[in-house]
Amino acid sequence: MNAAPDRFSHLVGQPVAAIDTPALVLDLDAMDRNLHRMADFCRARGLRLRPHAKMHKCAELARLQMAHGAVGVCVQKIGEALALAAQGVSDIYVSNEVVDEAKLARLAAAVRAGGTRFGLAVDSALGVQRLADALAHAGVTAAAAIDVYVEIDVGHGRCGAAPGEPALALARAVAAHPVLRFAGLQAYHGTAQHQRSGAERRASIARAAEAVALTRGLLEASGIAVPLVTGAGTGTFVHETASGQWGELQAGSYLFMDADYAANAADADAPAFEHALFVKAQVMSRPEGRAVIDAGHKSHAIDSGLPRVWWPEGLDFANGGDEHGVLRGAHLPALGDTVWLVPGHCDPTVNLHDVLVGVRGGLSAGHVERLLRVDARGALG
Amino acid sequence: MNAAPDRFSHLVGQPVAAIDTPALVLDLDAMDRNLHRMADFCRARGLRLRPHAKMHKCAELARLQMAHGAVGVCVQKIGEALALAAQGVSDIYVSNEVVDEAKLARLAAAVRAGGTRFGLAVDSALGVQRLADALAHAGVTAAAAIDVYVEIDVGHGRCGAAPGEPALALARAVAAHPVLRFAGLQAYHGTAQHQRSGAERRASIARAAEAVALTRGLLEASGIAVPLVTGAGTGTFVHETASGQWGELQAGSYLFMDADYAANAADADAPAFEHALFVKAQVMSRPEGRAVIDAGHKSHAIDSGLPRVWWPEGLDFANGGDEHGVLRGAHLPALGDTVWLVPGHCDPTVNLHDVLVGVRGGLSAGHVERLLRVDARGALG
Repeated sequence: MNAAPDRFSHLVGQPVAAIDTPALVLDLDAMDRNLHRMADFCRARGLRLRPHAKMHKCAELARLQMAHGAVGVCVQKIGEALALAAQGVSDIYVSNEVVDEAKLARLAAAVRAGGTRFGLAVDSALGVQRLADALAHAGVTAAAAIDVYVEIDVGHGRCGAAPGEPALALARAVAAHPVLRFAGLQAYHGTAQHQRSGAERRASIARAAEAVALTRGLLEASGIAVPLVTGAGTGTFVHETASGQWGELQAGSYLFMDADYAANAADADAPAFEHALFVKAQVMSRPEGRAVIDAGHKSHAIDSGLPRVWWPEGLDFANGGDEHGVLRGAHLPALGDTVWLVPGHCDPTVNLHDVLVGVRGGLSAGHVERLLRVDARGALG
Repeated sequence: MNAAPDRFSHLVGQPVAAIDTPALVLDLDAMDRNLHRMADFCRARGLRLRPHAKMHKCAELARLQMAHGAVGVCVQKIGEALALAAQGVSDIYVSNEVVDEAKLARLAAAVRAGGTRFGLAVDSALGVQRLADALAHAGVTAAAAIDVYVEIDVGHGRCGAAPGEPALALARAVAAHPVLRFAGLQAYHGTAQHQRSGAERRASIARAAEAVALTRGLLEASGIAVPLVTGAGTGTFVHETASGQWGELQAGSYLFMDADYAANAADADAPAFEHALFVKAQVMSRPEGRAVIDAGHKSHAIDSGLPRVWWPEGLDFANGGDEHGVLRGAHLPALGDTVWLVPGHCDPTVNLHDVLVGVRGGLSAGHVERLLRVDARGALG
């Protein structure tokens, strides 16, 4: 959309120093280690991994995760699902509710077109009915044409039916439509992800597990099999795993690891994930006592806190507005110097960029291996 | 970049109800009133208006402002300048420092190509030298080929040389290069924009005006004419105007008016600006006691506070993460109902969207008149 010259297309094979700022840079070596550590964790425990692609929004990375054992990916929006499906991602679950008829019509058309397995979460009778109507209108008649998960609120306090009877009523409604496949329960505790101590997170997920067990027991006692419970995030997945209630993990941020997740006290049994996502910035003004860089909150999301200055060490970052960051510390970088930031929250940070610049060989001596397109950037619908 | 079906291209002529959610909607009637009020204010006082296009990032709106008397626009990035220049905006001032040689080479190539008048701010000798070198390298030899403004820090505490002698030294350095035209002083007090009381803002701008007067006096006493002082924003421009020190206003947000600026106590002599920018959202989950909408901080920036719920009235907005907002209040909307938000901060909100959906005739009974492309969205370099 933007008619300015492409800042990045000439970079493949070039040294990291050649990357224009601000840029979103992916350390491919660190990312690969994160990829393997999570895949190994799930494989060793017989768990399905369905990483949340709302984090990276990149079909190439979704396919990479699936090549390393992931069963598919999650997204939050129909628009994200269609953007990734168009780039060959073959199994996509929209782990969120959609009641809008035009959106459901777009999903139904994609289901009808075939080639991609889709899933959707529901938490209302209207949502179930409108999904079934949209599929019927699109001429979808195949049995179990789409996976439908009933979301229960396990403590997050956002979407989701109440555990127990309300969830049972929805599961029955889903099961009543032959084209809808009742695929199980969606149970994600978002706020627990960011509780700083392992004990707090363990306690939150223990309560969530009770809600899951209650609901699953009720459904099974009512003759409705629960094929799967899906949920969990990078902050808590070891606790969902330990509970034995979840069969599929949706963690996404593990692949990039932002400053917010790194601020959690580590769980002993969790793999160690490394920062792989960085903003490369540059000092563009150097008044007395501060260094001002060319990256503000149009380059990195600040909803989960300011970025951490990764390099040079020992610097504090203060928000300087949309286009600036203000650094203070004992040893300030000079005008023109490169500064590396670790974003506070990777998901909305990636959404600010069209391209991830993939680097091999480290941030100082490495080179640009490839550019990764953020296929679902801005796919808000 | 995103391969999902275009959600908006069919909308022209359709009722507002047909707009997919979440969407960034521009009330064209309210915007036109804001446009005229600001143009009238400047015309009546003999002031130049150079609105900040970093706010809307849209060439069509930049051209509209210039058709109503603006002398040109400001931006913060070379990438924004080139994106707007490519769409026919003929006078663009980058009111920010650039010391990176590759970026300056892109600017110099555009200066060399002709057809657009460019300006740039400087606050370092290195910035002046590199700009001159880039122009020389591009073969720019015309006298006064680019307008250069020396930025002074008038209280914002971000970029800018100190008022007085340091600014004089820079002005001399600019004047020493024949292809650089010393165009005046850049003096913008960013933090003053958001001081809530008029008295605080007046006091901040009074101090800024002293710094301007001191620096201007020193330059003129040293034989350097100061053709213009440019600066001011939507929160303070009446005070810069009253001081008599500024000849050009850079206010940008007045055109859309966000919730943050509306929270300022109004100045008696300021035109009344209306909210023209809205996020259209929809209730997609309706648990007991709350309504969850399909717009989170991927749809509206929250750096300057959460959005205000415009309609229905009487609802509180709580952040529900990247894709959700959580509404509470005595009278909650139903599943599927439309909800209108006024974003907290328009500049980074617009940056999250590819298209502004322009509506004529109001948000309830109106229709989509045209789609406005956010040409410089993501133009971070």
